[in-house]
Amino acid sequence: MIRISVDVMGGDYDPEVAIAGAAIVQKYLSNIYFLFYGIEEVVKPVLKKYPCLDSISRFFPTESYTRMDEKPSQALRNGRGKSSMWYAIEAVKNGEADACVSAGNTGALMAMSYFCLKMLAEAERPGIAGIWPTLRSESIVLDIGATIGASASQLVDLAVMGAGMFRALYHTEKPSVGLLNVGVEEAKGLYEIKKAGMILREVQLEGLEYKGFVEGNDIGKGTVDVVVTEGFSGNIALKTAEGTARQIAEILNSAMRSSFLTSLGYFLSRRAFRTLKNKMDPDRVNGGVLLGLNGVVIKSHGSANANGFASAIRVGYEMVNNGLLKKITADLRRFHENKETLFDQEDEAAMSGESL
Amino acid sequence: MIRISVDVMGGDYDPEVAIAGAAIVQKYLSNIYFLFYGIEEVVKPVLKKYPCLDSISRFFPTESYTRMDEKPSQALRNGRGKSSMWYAIEAVKNGEADACVSAGNTGALMAMSYFCLKMLAEAERPGIAGIWPTLRSESIVLDIGATIGASASQLVDLAVMGAGMFRALYHTEKPSVGLLNVGVEEAKGLYEIKKAGMILREVQLEGLEYKGFVEGNDIGKGTVDVVVTEGFSGNIALKTAEGTARQIAEILNSAMRSSFLTSLGYFLSRRAFRTLKNKMDPDRVNGGVLLGLNGVVIKSHGSANANGFASAIRVGYEMVNNGLLKKITADLRRFHENKETLFDQEDEAAMSGESL
Repeated sequence: MIRISVDVMGGDYDPEVAIAGAAIVQKYLSNIYFLFYGIEEVVKPVLKKYPCLDSISRFFPTESYTRMDEKPSQALRNGRGKSSMWYAIEAVKNGEADACVSAGNTGALMAMSYFCLKMLAEAERPGIAGIWPTLRSESIVLDIGATIGASASQLVDLAVMGAGMFRALYHTEKPSVGLLNVGVEEAKGLYEIKKAGMILREVQLEGLEYKGFVEGNDIGKGTVDVVVTEGFSGNIALKTAEGTARQIAEILNSAMRSSFLTSLGYFLSRRAFRTLKNKMDPDRVNGGVLLGLNGVVIKSHGSANANGFASAIRVGYEMVNNGLLKKITADLRRFHENKETLFDQEDEAAMSGESL
Repeated sequence: MIRISVDVMGGDYDPEVAIAGAAIVQKYLSNIYFLFYGIEEVVKPVLKKYPCLDSISRFFPTESYTRMDEKPSQALRNGRGKSSMWYAIEAVKNGEADACVSAGNTGALMAMSYFCLKMLAEAERPGIAGIWPTLRSESIVLDIGATIGASASQLVDLAVMGAGMFRALYHTEKPSVGLLNVGVEEAKGLYEIKKAGMILREVQLEGLEYKGFVEGNDIGKGTVDVVVTEGFSGNIALKTAEGTARQIAEILNSAMRSSFLTSLGYFLSRRAFRTLKNKMDPDRVNGGVLLGLNGVVIKSHGSANANGFASAIRVGYEMVNNGLLKKITADLRRFHENKETLFDQEDEAAMSGESL
């Protein structure tokens, strides 16, 4: 039995999204149990509409919920021991749940999870990993916004955690890993990335195959299974890709409506557009994973629909089912045990050119 | 008369691209003159095919050319005083040309331009600005890869230079400017960006209207005319957007060929696809501009066709015609004269939240 604690109150829309998402998941996963957290007056009437969840869930009323516009520190102050988000996370800490899912405010979720669950002994800093649809299939990109900037050692941690997540989700023994970089050979300021590349080549981790540097356009191609970068550029990459996809959709949409012929053409070829939509659908690959913590916490997109929320629950389920934390911990330990030796080596190796 | 020096040997394809591009431009710009630089045996036969250029161009044979795979330092060592790229840049320095256009190796072009032309007295570091097609029209994004990392003062320089370029190209009196950031209010490591935002609000530059922070998805929306960021994340954003556009095109292309109905639909709606292609066409908005130098240097995309090269020439022409350097210099001076006072102010203001 895998138990998922759900912050029903998170997200931009109504709480029905989370509960309807749970109802979708229970259709194809028999060994799942839900712990719902939220304001009683809001959640109870919704739960009544989903009797299919009666026997596999329990509802815990909470005093408050964390709003989408609260700053992380404010959310922690206001929500600690009170809000639905806090209780959903605490259920993981107390061993009552195996994973937590929330569509709430990312900063607040990160802060509360960090405060409540603490870091894995082996990880230096948390990261958020996203699932990115690619031409090949799907890749994991991290960090997409947990922390800004990263040392070489922190980039290696991210590589290990991202590869562990990829193995848990896609059952690949040795996922390929690339470090996101710019295509300038002699560029300055990339010391930490080059150093991380050297370490990944040297340390020969069990759970990943290091492939070298990748550029922004390699993400969509699916050149590697796991793309590693620090949170600033990761977030810029994610948002820019979303913006570009929306831009193309809007241009095409209005061009298709511009005449009778194009409208007819659209009608006849709508199956192709459905294929595109399915492949790029943010709801299909929904679920940012907070990595590096003593517990599994999944962030569903604030604007996800019930199918999207179901995907996020599914991600949490797979993580637990495939022993994500154990997988990550072993490789992190292996890296940190060898770290001193690795960092003692001549730095020159790190500065030599390298690319895919 | 505006004189453009052209490195005919740059680019991934044959030298005909540059010359055919010049031939396109001369059809609609009467007061243009070209100085072509390249290897005689290669360029002369091509020039013969374009007699329309005879009276408005002169060819200068060079000993060598800069290869696409040369590292910047290597290119400078090998090409100085010898290669077509060097001579095209030097023509600007010597006042024989008003702007230089090359489709060659970006790093080499940057290094040679920096070495040969030197920086504007008022600018701290160079930047490369790109033209980005948006839902609204076009925006300028900089720096897309000249240098990694930027101080607050360097970000303000980029804002001033990007706005100057926007005014020269689109004749807007006060282009709107945004600083690229992530959507995390209390994030750390963004001190330089917040500080730059504070300065841009305080100093009230003549040539731009500062609008606050923007995120990655604002670029494609066209939320602001000029998006400012340091070269690492700028390059990641650019490449990621290119990758996403190619990904969507490939998925749609293969989905459209998947059945007779979808193929027919594609045929009927091909006009809509042409609209999309025109709007997103990298050749239409080709031309990265090297900013901060004592002269106008344009980088055409290495894989651009003749139309793309013509766009790059056109960008150089507009820059000169609209007095780019004078526009930039005035605002840079205004900023640097007030800089000491601005940096003396309490830093706390910079740390307060701010967003669009």
